[in-house]
Amino acid sequence: MRQASAEIVAVGTELLLGQIANTNAQWLSETLASIGINVHHHAVVGDNIRRVEEQFRISGRRADIIIVTGGLGPTEDDLTREAFQQMTDMDIVEHGPSMKKIEAFFKKQQAAMTPNNRKQGRVFAGADVMENQTGMAPGMIVTHERKVWVFLPGVPREMKRMTTDRVVPHLQQLIGQDTVIKSTMLRFMGIGESRLEDRLHDLIQQQTNPTIAPLAQNQGVAIRLTAKAASDQEATHLIDQTKATIMEKVGDYFYGVDDATLEESVSSLLERRNQLIGAAESLTGGMFTEKLIAVPGASEICRGGIVCYDTKVKENVLNVSPDLMRQYGTVSKACALAMAENVCSLLDSDIGISFTGVAGPASSEGHPPGTVFIAISEKSGKQLAEKYTFQGDRQTVRNRAVVKGYELLYHLLK
Amino acid sequence: MRQASAEIVAVGTELLLGQIANTNAQWLSETLASIGINVHHHAVVGDNIRRVEEQFRISGRRADIIIVTGGLGPTEDDLTREAFQQMTDMDIVEHGPSMKKIEAFFKKQQAAMTPNNRKQGRVFAGADVMENQTGMAPGMIVTHERKVWVFLPGVPREMKRMTTDRVVPHLQQLIGQDTVIKSTMLRFMGIGESRLEDRLHDLIQQQTNPTIAPLAQNQGVAIRLTAKAASDQEATHLIDQTKATIMEKVGDYFYGVDDATLEESVSSLLERRNQLIGAAESLTGGMFTEKLIAVPGASEICRGGIVCYDTKVKENVLNVSPDLMRQYGTVSKACALAMAENVCSLLDSDIGISFTGVAGPASSEGHPPGTVFIAISEKSGKQLAEKYTFQGDRQTVRNRAVVKGYELLYHLLK
Repeated sequence: MRQASAEIVAVGTELLLGQIANTNAQWLSETLASIGINVHHHAVVGDNIRRVEEQFRISGRRADIIIVTGGLGPTEDDLTREAFQQMTDMDIVEHGPSMKKIEAFFKKQQAAMTPNNRKQGRVFAGADVMENQTGMAPGMIVTHERKVWVFLPGVPREMKRMTTDRVVPHLQQLIGQDTVIKSTMLRFMGIGESRLEDRLHDLIQQQTNPTIAPLAQNQGVAIRLTAKAASDQEATHLIDQTKATIMEKVGDYFYGVDDATLEESVSSLLERRNQLIGAAESLTGGMFTEKLIAVPGASEICRGGIVCYDTKVKENVLNVSPDLMRQYGTVSKACALAMAENVCSLLDSDIGISFTGVAGPASSEGHPPGTVFIAISEKSGKQLAEKYTFQGDRQTVRNRAVVKGYELLYHLLK
Repeated sequence: MRQASAEIVAVGTELLLGQIANTNAQWLSETLASIGINVHHHAVVGDNIRRVEEQFRISGRRADIIIVTGGLGPTEDDLTREAFQQMTDMDIVEHGPSMKKIEAFFKKQQAAMTPNNRKQGRVFAGADVMENQTGMAPGMIVTHERKVWVFLPGVPREMKRMTTDRVVPHLQQLIGQDTVIKSTMLRFMGIGESRLEDRLHDLIQQQTNPTIAPLAQNQGVAIRLTAKAASDQEATHLIDQTKATIMEKVGDYFYGVDDATLEESVSSLLERRNQLIGAAESLTGGMFTEKLIAVPGASEICRGGIVCYDTKVKENVLNVSPDLMRQYGTVSKACALAMAENVCSLLDSDIGISFTGVAGPASSEGHPPGTVFIAISEKSGKQLAEKYTFQGDRQTVRNRAVVKGYELLYHLLK
């Protein structure tokens, strides 16, 4: 199958009520584009068997590959199987391994398994069944009237894992691998999207293979390079060449490729240096430490942290001098430095980092919301402290403070 | 027009490439639901005139109201007008006020107006033209073969303003405002979606007004009740009645309505009791404390927390006895209890909560990933500790532990 076109059909009334956005379709579209499959339509239909079947008929007529998300769960609202059966007369059978898994889950939880849970272990006879690594309902790939139907769970985590592990390789084989599409994401921080685009303007204009697409991200900015070539080797070469040109222009802001996060990059740098870090967090409330401990292998680089939201904790646990806090306030460079220095020694670490400031909504100690001090203190005696003014609501201010902390560490450690 | 059904059609290849999610459809769906219009489909189609026309034909057959977003701009890719004209043979004419506005804009910017910008001032003859208060291209409402077609710009800010100002009043008049729609979300925890549905099975089957829709959520399960009535008072009464019946059956698992989160509910309970809480977090790495401090007013109920990922922090900061940890291990009920008790006194709080366990991917101290102990210790001396086995990857285990911690607290405090 060459130049296959795809359609993504989401089943779920919650989408039609506006309770959630169809981010599954976005992610799947991006993924299909990266392997050279054009998506021509998205469709969303509610949990209504007649309308789902009708939509399936429309989608089956106009696309070669139909990817259906949702409606595979245990409840009466989950009607994807039934609608497809009405259209195709395919048999639905119990899938042994999935049933066993569901039964084992309820046994392990010591919970009674209600009859509707058996529904999740039912699949189309002859389907290519895809095990659900992170949930219960398996996925399926079925061919009907020469169209390829892929059924995926609606839970994003489950859908993504199954797509990456099983659907992408299946489709790549299907469309014939005489061109290789390779894509990589270069990640930058400390530079805005427009400034990055400005610096790379000529390159972006002239470049066709790989294509260069700048994207705004939660943590900084990313550039997606997508190359088409006759071989994997050639595609890699094309990407490497363009990457080198980009690095010449904006390499100072680069921190990682693909799924790299700032906290992972900082973790790797700490691990390479064999150093431990500890954080004293006031307004960020544990967010900095939480992100670090989310990275597997965290015990090599972090013993823990102190959340010192209240002045008493700064004083009694972190031993910040009450005189210092009276004189300069807790939202001050002096307090931030003392917090970083003291958490470093209290947790017997090589580096201490601290966050103190005003998350809002109210002002504090005369400072408006968004005022944040971040300090870093090393065992070696080296110290730095910076004042920032972040825009946004309570949660945004706290998020930005944490990202900034990781940026500071990345520059310090690399 | 009564019981009108709507469809939202987005035109734009950027959606099919996954560059953005269709948040316009989400917002419009929510808005239409709030005035009692059921959305039965979303569709997304690229900037291809044949496919846009084909989609319009499908949408026009199945919906009473078709809302089209995007494709009204100045570029060659903007084909919404042309596709609708092909389908309907409607005339397209220049709209004087819109043309004047566009010309004035370019004059003010001292920029040359390229010819394609005139395209934006062109509308269907006889259309109800909606001025764009925040952008250039006007919107339109047209009736064709007794179906109502609403054309809106794709830029979310422009689309929202035009919808609120013009489309909502127009549609309300159209459907006749003799019904009020009211909706509320009831939130539950500690009960799975299938078990909840099982307990409410008969009610869900028989109930038509309000409708009852169970939904799986990140934190537990929710039920959306949606009532239609002649007055606000009557709709509220219908919801209250059904809510009472639901509470009789599953009230033990209820924690809040609408946008309530577990951590907000726990915060309110602590505030009402005038109590402070402190957490000692090992595998959860600060996530419990972070969520609590995200709630505005956190200083009333939480002084902070100790992230004691490493045994040394448990020992040196939290003063957990090394003998105890050697004898029982750090992943044990005994260690969890000591952590909870000690963090409570260290942070001079009324309640201490602790999390210790194995997030994975590797096992630890002979326990498989997913093994978690949570303990709560009160200043009054009351204590509890529970062992859990959570399924999923590192991040899921950590998330589930935190949600479980909030569940335990909620039951304790309410």
